[in-house]
Amino acid sequence: MNDKQVKDITGRDVDFGKWYTDVCMKADLIDYSSVKGSMIIRPYGYAIWENMQAILDKMFKATGHENVMMPMFIPESLLNVEKEHVEGFAPEVAWVTHGGKEELDERMCVRPTSEVLFCEHYAKIIKSYRDLPKLYNQWCTIVRWEKETRPFLRSREILWQEGHTMHATSEEAKAETLKMLGVYEDFQRNYLALPVIVGKKTEKEKFAGAIETYTLEAMMYNGVALQNGTSHYFGNHFAKAFNIQFLNKDNILETPYQTSWGVTTRMIGAIIMTHGDDRGLVLPPNIAPTKVIIIPIGNDNEVENIANTISSNLSNVNISNKVDNRDKTPGFRFAEAEVKGYPIRIEIGRRDLENNEVTLVRRDTLEKILVKIDEVTNKVEELISTIQKDMYDRALKRRDSMIYTANNYEEMMKIANTKNGFIKVNWCGNMECEDKIKEDMGIKSRCLIDDEEVDGPCVCCGKKATTKIYFGKQY
Amino acid sequence: MNDKQVKDITGRDVDFGKWYTDVCMKADLIDYSSVKGSMIIRPYGYAIWENMQAILDKMFKATGHENVMMPMFIPESLLNVEKEHVEGFAPEVAWVTHGGKEELDERMCVRPTSEVLFCEHYAKIIKSYRDLPKLYNQWCTIVRWEKETRPFLRSREILWQEGHTMHATSEEAKAETLKMLGVYEDFQRNYLALPVIVGKKTEKEKFAGAIETYTLEAMMYNGVALQNGTSHYFGNHFAKAFNIQFLNKDNILETPYQTSWGVTTRMIGAIIMTHGDDRGLVLPPNIAPTKVIIIPIGNDNEVENIANTISSNLSNVNISNKVDNRDKTPGFRFAEAEVKGYPIRIEIGRRDLENNEVTLVRRDTLEKILVKIDEVTNKVEELISTIQKDMYDRALKRRDSMIYTANNYEEMMKIANTKNGFIKVNWCGNMECEDKIKEDMGIKSRCLIDDEEVDGPCVCCGKKATTKIYFGKQY
Repeated sequence: MNDKQVKDITGRDVDFGKWYTDVCMKADLIDYSSVKGSMIIRPYGYAIWENMQAILDKMFKATGHENVMMPMFIPESLLNVEKEHVEGFAPEVAWVTHGGKEELDERMCVRPTSEVLFCEHYAKIIKSYRDLPKLYNQWCTIVRWEKETRPFLRSREILWQEGHTMHATSEEAKAETLKMLGVYEDFQRNYLALPVIVGKKTEKEKFAGAIETYTLEAMMYNGVALQNGTSHYFGNHFAKAFNIQFLNKDNILETPYQTSWGVTTRMIGAIIMTHGDDRGLVLPPNIAPTKVIIIPIGNDNEVENIANTISSNLSNVNISNKVDNRDKTPGFRFAEAEVKGYPIRIEIGRRDLENNEVTLVRRDTLEKILVKIDEVTNKVEELISTIQKDMYDRALKRRDSMIYTANNYEEMMKIANTKNGFIKVNWCGNMECEDKIKEDMGIKSRCLIDDEEVDGPCVCCGKKATTKIYFGKQY
Repeated sequence: MNDKQVKDITGRDVDFGKWYTDVCMKADLIDYSSVKGSMIIRPYGYAIWENMQAILDKMFKATGHENVMMPMFIPESLLNVEKEHVEGFAPEVAWVTHGGKEELDERMCVRPTSEVLFCEHYAKIIKSYRDLPKLYNQWCTIVRWEKETRPFLRSREILWQEGHTMHATSEEAKAETLKMLGVYEDFQRNYLALPVIVGKKTEKEKFAGAIETYTLEAMMYNGVALQNGTSHYFGNHFAKAFNIQFLNKDNILETPYQTSWGVTTRMIGAIIMTHGDDRGLVLPPNIAPTKVIIIPIGNDNEVENIANTISSNLSNVNISNKVDNRDKTPGFRFAEAEVKGYPIRIEIGRRDLENNEVTLVRRDTLEKILVKIDEVTNKVEELISTIQKDMYDRALKRRDSMIYTANNYEEMMKIANTKNGFIKVNWCGNMECEDKIKEDMGIKSRCLIDDEEVDGPCVCCGKKATTKIYFGKQY
């Protein structure tokens, strides 16, 4: 790879879709195989997922959750227990019909999500109020038979985590739903530098079988929304369908209340499409598998030694880094470092050494900074915070510049026809208006806005509005 | 659970199979569901797997391996590329034939192992000697459609890791095969306290498609062998079948050489059946999710405070521990601690406190030790090493007491008919003799013995022996 090849990445403003795929491929995040609709996650892409998993897993455990592993198959009769749920998922599952040469008595799908498996288990292990809450999570692969797929965003196989919890009261279950939404928001803002908007989904857009669905809506560079995680409150109707009951303190049988919540490798897609640029990936330092790439220039022992010393010093303060001393031109190595989005690049050449200096390059701004060798570690530590903060702030600024307010249907239509972004409107809460907007403008509701007062009639029917809401195009 | 319920575990010497299932269930390691042939791994069982995964993953990365994620499906035509391989696996795979309502053009199996997926990918990404070696691993679930299943040992779904590597020369690939065998051996001896025998499999017993298969053979309490991990050398015939080629330093096309290696949750079964006793699970401290369980006795603030102080002190030196102060009788809590196999139990009662002492109980020997409160942390640290070593030594002693030597066919038959264990014999290397022994005695070859000289003719045909070999019953 050289500078020319970096320039072979399709321009972000030329064809955003093609730019995205180019970055996924050229940064060695994914590859394709003969398995249609699935992707190979390559070591560099998987290392990002491993970081996400490690951080989130710690957050889940700190909030009292335990990991389990449910079967990956669901017998058809089990999927059928909860009516709304099966209607939502049956059209998009993969069916196993044969084991070896024998046809199965009952076909099974590969789990598209595991509510029914958890419920069946909970019915066996929950007997008393002492058994509650049950706070389980699993890290696994699910399958949804999508027709059109796109790396990380929409794939037939999805790496994710799914939390499934049971509580004695609906208040506790609602609190859990919001707590985990908060964990996701914290993670996405502070590690992924994503200024997500969180809020409740409409009845139309909620999860199949849920009472309430909360979402994290990220906005991509092109103004298109990406639903980047959800947290659901189920009430107790799954529990009723599965006959889950517990004896309360007064020895009376009650039905518990349920939640589920999940995030996927889609978060990698959100990072790419929020922070990436024409030169490739730009990783937020707090999630980058390698925060610093050190590139010694020229075949020079002293330069190599300094590179290795800087590397050890960074490792000593737990800053992940790599020395790239491959037998390739500096241009090639710089270009590859840019495509792969390492947050900081350190260039070390003979000339700089004479001044006892090296060059630090910020990936997010491409700014070059000369730093004395013995100040490198301190400067890198400082830059990591600065870059993380700046990336968030830039994404926030861009997001806010693409939030539009429409006061009437005509205005809304005009915005929808000419711009991507989120359109904020007053809404009566009626699904017919939501449907009409989708039909007329090709945009869907993102989430309800709960911290702003209604200031006008419904943008669609003109009747009394009950809430403000965002609409927008989505992936 | 109380002492009586612990005694409800079937005696280990009464019915070993039932004892095993009782321990899996009563220690809350697994549960069953309506998904036949699969198990639910419950939080306590999954925590053991998470420890195994964390330790092994570190060992893999320290030896230069990177994690990836391949698709979980294999199109039938891809599985068919390597003939021996497909013949070995096709009879036991689960076939996906439908996506949603539509029948697939080509059916796909859920991966039973991923050689063909890695090979297809390697064919795309390996071009030059500079791309070698490729040292990839993945942690995932595989599916093999077993007729008879048993928790952890044989299941339709298996949690495992599979390493797949490519090398420029056969020497390097052979060295990798042995290196990873060594990593497994180190892990199983030093963390799981399993005195495994390692060696090469016969032609008959090797992995479908491999040139050489090395195995780790653990011996269970009842003398039955458990194949507890394998490492395979493939030569380059998969690479040829998949047309994987690289330009060597002289710019000439060559075919690379391949390995694969894997271990599974079966290792949890090996721990149970090697170390467990009539009171339940006994976990080696180096793999136990909770090394110390602290049980305060009586409703007594001072006792509770001491319990919490001891817990913090242990946490400060990174010894995982839990205080069990549930509103249950001491008898119940002691019994549960025994069933779950926590390596060390600390009992704290009012009477001991007056002497400034607490009681430590070793799970492996049930020995009780009075310890001054301010010496608890030191004593626990010491006991952890002692227990780990003693568990290994006891398992080794038992294993060695069940290795028998047979000098002729009659002796071998007599041992096979009356005893479980490994039978060491001289063998000509001919598969007909191996088949005859299996037919006559119901035992299979375990592995070749490479550190002992042949000292007689083949135990079966009486012709010149070429090697010593172990035979035995297996799970």
